[in-house]
Amino acid sequence: MAAWAKRLAGVRGVLLDISGVLYDSGEGGGTPIDGSVEAVARLKRSQLKVRFCTNESQKSRGELVRLLRRLGFDISEDEVTAPAPAACQILKERGLRPHLLIHDGVRPEFDQIDTSNPNCVVMADAGDDFSYRNMNQAFQLLMELERPVLISLGKGRYYKETSGLMLDVGAYMKALEYACGIEAEVVGKPSPEFFRSALQAMGLEAHQAQ
Amino acid sequence: MAAWAKRLAGVRGVLLDISGVLYDSGEGGGTPIDGSVEAVARLKRSQLKVRFCTNESQKSRGELVRLLRRLGFDISEDEVTAPAPAACQILKERGLRPHLLIHDGVRPEFDQIDTSNPNCVVMADAGDDFSYRNMNQAFQLLMELERPVLISLGKGRYYKETSGLMLDVGAYMKALEYACGIEAEVVGKPSPEFFRSALQAMGLEAHQAQ
Repeated sequence: MAAWAKRLAGVRGVLLDISGVLYDSGEGGGTPIDGSVEAVARLKRSQLKVRFCTNESQKSRGELVRLLRRLGFDISEDEVTAPAPAACQILKERGLRPHLLIHDGVRPEFDQIDTSNPNCVVMADAGDDFSYRNMNQAFQLLMELERPVLISLGKGRYYKETSGLMLDVGAYMKALEYACGIEAEVVGKPSPEFFRSALQAMGLEAHQAQ
Repeated sequence: MAAWAKRLAGVRGVLLDISGVLYDSGEGGGTPIDGSVEAVARLKRSQLKVRFCTNESQKSRGELVRLLRRLGFDISEDEVTAPAPAACQILKERGLRPHLLIHDGVRPEFDQIDTSNPNCVVMADAGDDFSYRNMNQAFQLLMELERPVLISLGKGRYYKETSGLMLDVGAYMKALEYACGIEAEVVGKPSPEFFRSALQAMGLEAHQAQ
């Protein structure tokens, strides 16, 4: 048996990243990466289960899926594991009311969350909204909390847009960690819980997925 | 001999910080800290040498001294050790041409520096100029360099303004360090070279100063 065949023996599902794997974001939404539309289509025609696992935190799942469908991908919202919904679950479980340092595009994911009188900060890839003013507001709030809680949707260093490399949320997370002398809780890849929740949605164990 | 007198025996000079020690910056320039104007005046009337050692990197020394004189301090430009002139010396010695991620207020300090075709980034407390766009520009430039050099004027976590705590350059330095996988060179306090240059300007050894 060839090495790749051995490695795939017992595999019943595939987790696919989105940004930088299926497409590069950029002007006009972005462009599909060569061969990725057909690869998704072939996987979906196969016996394998397919799920999409992303750290995208500038867009709601709805917006992301609309964009991907426009680019030609066969994908629906309930096939996507993304950090914002995972963060919402944590906020509810722990009675946390976030100050949101996020991009407007992902704000709909937090519609059901109480943001009055904040007792934590949730940060995501805010792009241009990472202004000094917005960063300082989040910083001041954390410094006022007796037990500062900072939740970051991913900790990526940068990502690729069609126009070039772009600073990701992880850089700004490090800035707030250093300024406040705290450690952020990361929701999203590479957190094992995040991958587990994606596998759970597929009904698979880790050894059954690639 | 009392403990304080023992400690001061042999002391011939005093190094004074400025921000948060002599004054708090803020609306209209800032406000002197209680008793500090008189304390500087008394030190200057004493036998002790006096020098001011600051990590202020939003303003040129000229602008800073004009502000402090307006607030009532007896201070002149040649009594101030500040990181921007120290950085300029390093840039010249090493043939470095910086991309400047700085506040417009400190730009005059770099008037004599060649900034064409940059081969390093110099960052200072840029305040509102720490926009995503400006941070990303510095990041992209560092990623394009074969040997990325990042020089940071200080590494403060935050400072106090009359209106509250403000993020300092150190937080943004950490962001670029993480994103690029590099370590910045810090010019300014707490670097021993920086203190040494202040002592040298006073003609004193470390044990002769407080």
